[in-house]
Amino acid sequence: MTQPSTAPHAPADPNAIDARVFPPSARRGSDCGQLELAGIRATELVERHGSPLYVIDEAAARSRASRIRTALQAEAERIGTTATVYYAGKAFLCVEVARWMAEEGLAIDVASGGELAVALAAGADPARIGFHGNNKSEREIARAVEAGVGTIIIDSEIETERVAAAAARAGRVQRVRLRVNSGVHASTHDYLATSHEDQKFGQPLADAPRLVAAILAHDSLDFVGLHCHIGSQIFATDGFRESARRLLGAYPELQRLAGRPIPELNLGGGFGIAYTSAQADAVPDIADIARELADIVAETAAEAGVAVPALAFEPGRSVIGQAGVTLYTVGTTKTVQLTGSDAAADPADLGYAERRYVSVDGGMSDNPRPALYGADYTARLANRLSDADPALVRVVGKHCESGDIVVPREVLPGDVRPGDTLAVAATGAYCWSLSSTYNYVPRPPVIAVRDGASRLIVRGQTEDELLAQSVVPSPHEGDLGNGAGK
Amino acid sequence: MTQPSTAPHAPADPNAIDARVFPPSARRGSDCGQLELAGIRATELVERHGSPLYVIDEAAARSRASRIRTALQAEAERIGTTATVYYAGKAFLCVEVARWMAEEGLAIDVASGGELAVALAAGADPARIGFHGNNKSEREIARAVEAGVGTIIIDSEIETERVAAAAARAGRVQRVRLRVNSGVHASTHDYLATSHEDQKFGQPLADAPRLVAAILAHDSLDFVGLHCHIGSQIFATDGFRESARRLLGAYPELQRLAGRPIPELNLGGGFGIAYTSAQADAVPDIADIARELADIVAETAAEAGVAVPALAFEPGRSVIGQAGVTLYTVGTTKTVQLTGSDAAADPADLGYAERRYVSVDGGMSDNPRPALYGADYTARLANRLSDADPALVRVVGKHCESGDIVVPREVLPGDVRPGDTLAVAATGAYCWSLSSTYNYVPRPPVIAVRDGASRLIVRGQTEDELLAQSVVPSPHEGDLGNGAGK
Repeated sequence: MTQPSTAPHAPADPNAIDARVFPPSARRGSDCGQLELAGIRATELVERHGSPLYVIDEAAARSRASRIRTALQAEAERIGTTATVYYAGKAFLCVEVARWMAEEGLAIDVASGGELAVALAAGADPARIGFHGNNKSEREIARAVEAGVGTIIIDSEIETERVAAAAARAGRVQRVRLRVNSGVHASTHDYLATSHEDQKFGQPLADAPRLVAAILAHDSLDFVGLHCHIGSQIFATDGFRESARRLLGAYPELQRLAGRPIPELNLGGGFGIAYTSAQADAVPDIADIARELADIVAETAAEAGVAVPALAFEPGRSVIGQAGVTLYTVGTTKTVQLTGSDAAADPADLGYAERRYVSVDGGMSDNPRPALYGADYTARLANRLSDADPALVRVVGKHCESGDIVVPREVLPGDVRPGDTLAVAATGAYCWSLSSTYNYVPRPPVIAVRDGASRLIVRGQTEDELLAQSVVPSPHEGDLGNGAGK
Repeated sequence: MTQPSTAPHAPADPNAIDARVFPPSARRGSDCGQLELAGIRATELVERHGSPLYVIDEAAARSRASRIRTALQAEAERIGTTATVYYAGKAFLCVEVARWMAEEGLAIDVASGGELAVALAAGADPARIGFHGNNKSEREIARAVEAGVGTIIIDSEIETERVAAAAARAGRVQRVRLRVNSGVHASTHDYLATSHEDQKFGQPLADAPRLVAAILAHDSLDFVGLHCHIGSQIFATDGFRESARRLLGAYPELQRLAGRPIPELNLGGGFGIAYTSAQADAVPDIADIARELADIVAETAAEAGVAVPALAFEPGRSVIGQAGVTLYTVGTTKTVQLTGSDAAADPADLGYAERRYVSVDGGMSDNPRPALYGADYTARLANRLSDADPALVRVVGKHCESGDIVVPREVLPGDVRPGDTLAVAATGAYCWSLSSTYNYVPRPPVIAVRDGASRLIVRGQTEDELLAQSVVPSPHEGDLGNGAGK
């Protein structure tokens, strides 16, 4: 092994299960140090449900949901208002998870007719569903209105007319928000404030009075407030401050147009999580975020001279991300000697003479985030402890593409080998959601674990199901009388 | 409209259908200038099969396959050898396309058990299938051996033992190649040659003698040659020259070890295509590539002092990419004023005062390549011609993500509007393959068009199918007797 003690990314213990990255129930059991989730050995889960396997720790998901909701509601109460917390279903939605969220007192945001169908199938109260999207179809709008969806977030001028018409047809008054661009873009510690936004979502804030006037002109619409979403993986609240200031700055004019106060302000989501121990120190507690956000709203409402509105937030990743762990089985490994130029390309590799490629039985099909966003993750040996010298590792998938990387850089015991079970942490959000069947690799199932028990919550696919998508037309099946005789 | 005549990316005619990007059958019909594919109006295809819709021009796919095969085989014959052309199924595989490829005389490369199942279901000759992958499971290896797959490409040391054992169990002698890293990385006009490769595929060329000796030690294995793959979207052949030189440089030693000539050399795929008219001028003709490749092999074999081996190539994108067109329906549009700083961020925007966002009914679910690779595409109005002033356009999808972009930059008639049909060209490769169901948006169907007729070749999904993946356990379904009473 060639890992020097000064290597910058070497963890103190490459077997450590960091509770700030894994679900709280994750621990090394007394039985050979196997990883346990909710009291069940990871290897037992793989034996029962197969590999790869998405695991969601139900208690972790519920407690995060509850904690975020109560923190935001308590701080809203402190400043004399209320807060509604919508679970952003796009992060990971299935009937069971939607039910947990409803039971934990969260409303649900959906971004398509399909997500709406899942939320409704879970028995979620339609009045507590928000419907998003920059291009809802007229059919989706009609379904949402007819289902009694609480709020539709209008994203463009034409949608005002579409929603108004659908509501009128259904004989309803539809509550709507208007999505605006605050010009604030936030990520992690920084934010950028511009005068406008060159992106697909929302309307310029400067146009809000005209667009709200158009909404107010429809008897079938009830305008409840502005909505904005400033980014993803946000650790600091400064961007929310600037965004709230800009949005509430428009409220006096909107109030004048409406002839009544504007009751709500929706500040979107984007609260960040730790994918690695290195990130974990920087992630603030939700209680601190909630307090800062409440102060920001109280201050900026006062500055704008409007009453503090009811608040709404839309966390997704911060609810479900760290409740998820993906289990893989190692198939092959190889070691590549690193030269100076490789290490120079990434300073984190400095000090390592070699990189171990550890190939698992999934990859970019079940987690495209490293390929899409250069995302980082944490991997751990799940079937055993090892005191082997640590090695610089890249966990890769089985797909026919060199960018098929699961964890770009990790330090693991150097004896990681075929047959080992690997656990990759914080895969609860945007993994199953974005998964594909690249190379005809079936989507893995999702199981929930709780109190020593596991159960299937999303079926996995089979190869036969994928094959059955291929249609082999008979000579008479050509839909224009053709396709025959070839 | 604010588009000046000097805008650098403005096409001469924003209605033009460039035959170097669209399939050869694509043309504007006399009926209001509607786009026709294989003689069928795009709007008729959408009426019959829905929107979004993947369309594959069968004649285009077959003729590209045939042209690439005959060009490479003719040039191989010129230098006194043969060439096998494998269609790289990962680009886009279904039973029907696999059948076309077999009928056009191509062998087929598969990268998983699922892809193997599709090729076999198409009736492809197993002896003309190559099986790839850095992490084939033992079950996949056994299936491939038992099916009589022609060649398995060994990617790591452990696979030699696994394939040998599977072949011995099946009582077969399995032909195998060894995938090596030539240290050459090529893309478009450039290549980089390094002494090794820091990537998941293949083994260092320097280790080839040892690894081949291990293969030769097994009676159940028949070593036929080295394999390498140097990159994607390659327009120039220089990288192949350096790679062939390096691989063939190892052949004398391998020949000595084997006590016989090494019969084959597989140079992989990676031939580029034009996604836009701007790229089209730079893409060489396959006949030129074939001639250069043959010359390279003849020269480098002579340099190495070995007989010219039989050749193998693995094109995927260059066969199927430009046979594909995706049809979308426009749902909403909006216009964003560009400031100097936006334009400065991308010089191609210079001269435009505004950008039109055109939202379609698909997006990163049916084509993740722009999000994954920053890929460029060409879009055209398909339901009509328009002489409206051209506008700078960004085609975006309906997903709840700001990176959900279909065509980052295009110039279209400025009256593009809701209800229009948009055709996006060159979506035959790596679109359906990589597609997801993000936001519960069902995967669209794939149809083939030919001679005025269309037919389904891959079924689309329904929202009900997606919803049915969600399992709602009954109180007794918990697999450890749990999951109840919550």
